[in-house]
Amino acid sequence: MKLRSLLSAAAVQAILVVVLLSAPLRAAEPLPSWRAGPAKARIIAFVHQVCDRQSPEYVRPADRIAVFDNDGTMWCEKPLYFQLLYVFHRIGELAPRHPEWKTTQPFKAVIENDRQALRASGVRGLMTLMAATHAGISENEFAASVERWAAAARHPRFHRPFTALVFQPMLELLAYLRAHDFTCFIVSGGGIDFMRVLLPSRYGIPPWRIIGSYSRVRFAAGEILRLPENAFTNNGPNKPIAIYRRIGKRPILACGNSDGDLAMLQYAAAGRGPSLELLVHHTDAEREYAYDRQSRVGTLDKGLDYARVRNWLVVDMKKDWKKIFAAAGTGAVSAR
Amino acid sequence: MKLRSLLSAAAVQAILVVVLLSAPLRAAEPLPSWRAGPAKARIIAFVHQVCDRQSPEYVRPADRIAVFDNDGTMWCEKPLYFQLLYVFHRIGELAPRHPEWKTTQPFKAVIENDRQALRASGVRGLMTLMAATHAGISENEFAASVERWAAAARHPRFHRPFTALVFQPMLELLAYLRAHDFTCFIVSGGGIDFMRVLLPSRYGIPPWRIIGSYSRVRFAAGEILRLPENAFTNNGPNKPIAIYRRIGKRPILACGNSDGDLAMLQYAAAGRGPSLELLVHHTDAEREYAYDRQSRVGTLDKGLDYARVRNWLVVDMKKDWKKIFAAAGTGAVSAR
Repeated sequence: MKLRSLLSAAAVQAILVVVLLSAPLRAAEPLPSWRAGPAKARIIAFVHQVCDRQSPEYVRPADRIAVFDNDGTMWCEKPLYFQLLYVFHRIGELAPRHPEWKTTQPFKAVIENDRQALRASGVRGLMTLMAATHAGISENEFAASVERWAAAARHPRFHRPFTALVFQPMLELLAYLRAHDFTCFIVSGGGIDFMRVLLPSRYGIPPWRIIGSYSRVRFAAGEILRLPENAFTNNGPNKPIAIYRRIGKRPILACGNSDGDLAMLQYAAAGRGPSLELLVHHTDAEREYAYDRQSRVGTLDKGLDYARVRNWLVVDMKKDWKKIFAAAGTGAVSAR
Repeated sequence: MKLRSLLSAAAVQAILVVVLLSAPLRAAEPLPSWRAGPAKARIIAFVHQVCDRQSPEYVRPADRIAVFDNDGTMWCEKPLYFQLLYVFHRIGELAPRHPEWKTTQPFKAVIENDRQALRASGVRGLMTLMAATHAGISENEFAASVERWAAAARHPRFHRPFTALVFQPMLELLAYLRAHDFTCFIVSGGGIDFMRVLLPSRYGIPPWRIIGSYSRVRFAAGEILRLPENAFTNNGPNKPIAIYRRIGKRPILACGNSDGDLAMLQYAAAGRGPSLELLVHHTDAEREYAYDRQSRVGTLDKGLDYARVRNWLVVDMKKDWKKIFAAAGTGAVSAR
C-alpha cells in the first residue's frame, strides 16, 4: 500500500469514527431499553462521574475496566446454561458412533432424556459429558459444531435461537461504556472454547477479552490438543484471580447475577477509587424468568444480602427493563 | 457530558486519528532503524500481503494477531534477565529486615555477590528469591518498588536505565503492525507483575495483552494475595498453550529469540494461512551482545536449525539493524 492510500485510508477511518460515534448518539438517548428510574440514573451518573475530568472521581480511560458475567447477566441461563444444552445436543449427534453410550451413564440419561438419572450423575456426570464433547476435537471442528447448533437449535420456551436470547439492555450498556472509553471483558464460568465461537460478533468483544473456564491441553505438532480434564473453573473466588492474572487491572464496574459473581463484585468494590457493582435480578416470570435464592441455576442469595448492605445496584428486570431480548441481528459490532 | 460535547469530542478524536496516523507516515519510511535488505523487505512484503484485500493471502484485521517474546526479543537480556537483576536489588533492599539472610542460601550469595554460590543454588534458589521478593506484598507496593528500581538502577555495561535498553527496531515493528491493524501481544517467560509495571507505557500494549508466568494466589477480603509458589511458567510449549487460552486465535506473526520461543513459532507456522516467524539473532558484540547456541541465557540452538529448514526469518542484529536501543522517551504510546 502506498503512503497516499494509507493516508486516505486514515481519513476514511476518521470520518467513519465520527459517523459511527455521532449517529447513534444523535438518534437516541443512552440506554434506550432501560426505563427511566434509579437504576438507569445511577449507571449514567457513575459513567459521567468517572469520565468528567473536573470530577474528583475521574478515572483515566486506561483504567476504565468493566467486567461482565455471561450466563444470566448477558443472556438467559434457563432452563439450563446454554453450553450444557449444546453438550446434550452434541451427545445425541455423536451417539451413533458410540453404541456403548446406550448402556452407560451419564450418556444413557442424555439419550433417553432422563432428567432424574442425569441429576443423579451430579457434577462428575456433567464433567464426563463435557469431556466427551469438548476434548479430542480440533478447534476448527469444535467451532463448526457449535455454529451449526447455534444456527439450528431453538430455546424450548421462546422458540428462538439461543444467541437471540441476549439481553438488549446489557448490549446497550456495553455500547454505552465503549462510547465512554471503557474496555469491557466477559468473565464467565462458561468454557472459553464455546464462548469464543458465539460471543465476539454478538457482543463486539474479541476472544482475548473473554475469560472463562478451561480444560487441560497439550501442545504437539503445532496444534493444541484439548484433554478430557478440567484445569480452571472460572467461578466464585477464581473470577478475581482470573481478572488479576489476565486483565492486570482492578475493574471499576462489575456486573453479575448470581452468588458465583460475588467475589468479582467484591474485588471491584475493594478498589480505592469509585466503582459500580451491578446485579441483574431475574424478576420477570412473564418475559423471562423469576428466580433468586432458591434457584439451582444462577442462585442469587448471599449476593442480595451483600447488595443491600453495600449499596450495590440491583437491577430489577421487570421494572428497569423496557425490553428484555435483543432483536435478531442487532448489537453485533466489530470485535476488536 | 452533554451530547454536543460528546460529538465534538468525537470530532477531535477523529482529527487526532488523522494527525497521529499521517504525521509519522509522511515524515519517514516504515521501520527506519532497519537497514534496507532481505529482512526488512520480507517483513514489509508479509504485512502488505495480509493487508491487501486483493491478495489471496488477505487476513481480516480481527485475525491479525502478532506475538512477541520479551527478554532478548524486545529488550536486552544480558548479563541476566532484568527481572532477576531487580530481584537481587530487592533482596539487598529487604536484607536489613531479614538478618537471618546473612547466613542462609541463596540470600547470602546475593548479599555477598557470590555468583558461584548463586549458580549452585540453581532454579530452586532463584524460585526462593522470586518468592521472597514477589509474594506477601500488595500489588501497589510491588509496583512502586519496581518503579523505584527502574528509575534508579543502571545497566552494568551500558550505564543506562534498563527500560532504555528496548530495541528501537522492535518498537518500530510494533508501531508498523499497529498502523496495519494488527493486535500485538507480549508472550514472555517474565512474571506478569513485573512486566505490567514497566512495559505498557513503553510498548503501547495494555496489561491484558501481556502474557507471562505467574504465581499461585489467594483471594481474600477483596484483595489478591500472591503466594510464594509458581503456578505457570510461560516458556516452551506453555507459550502456545497460554496463547490458546488467553488470546483465542492463532497468531500470524510470532517473534522470539531463543529456543524457549520455538513452540510459539511452530504454533504460528502450523496455521492454515500465511504467517511470519521471526528470530532475533544476537550477533552484535559491539553494540549489544553476540550469543546463540552456547549461551546460558537466551540459548538459540534448535531454533537456528528450525529457521533454516522452515525458512523462518532470522534477523541479524549487526547487519539488519541501523540502531539498537531506543532513545530515552521514544516509543511510548497510550497503552489501550
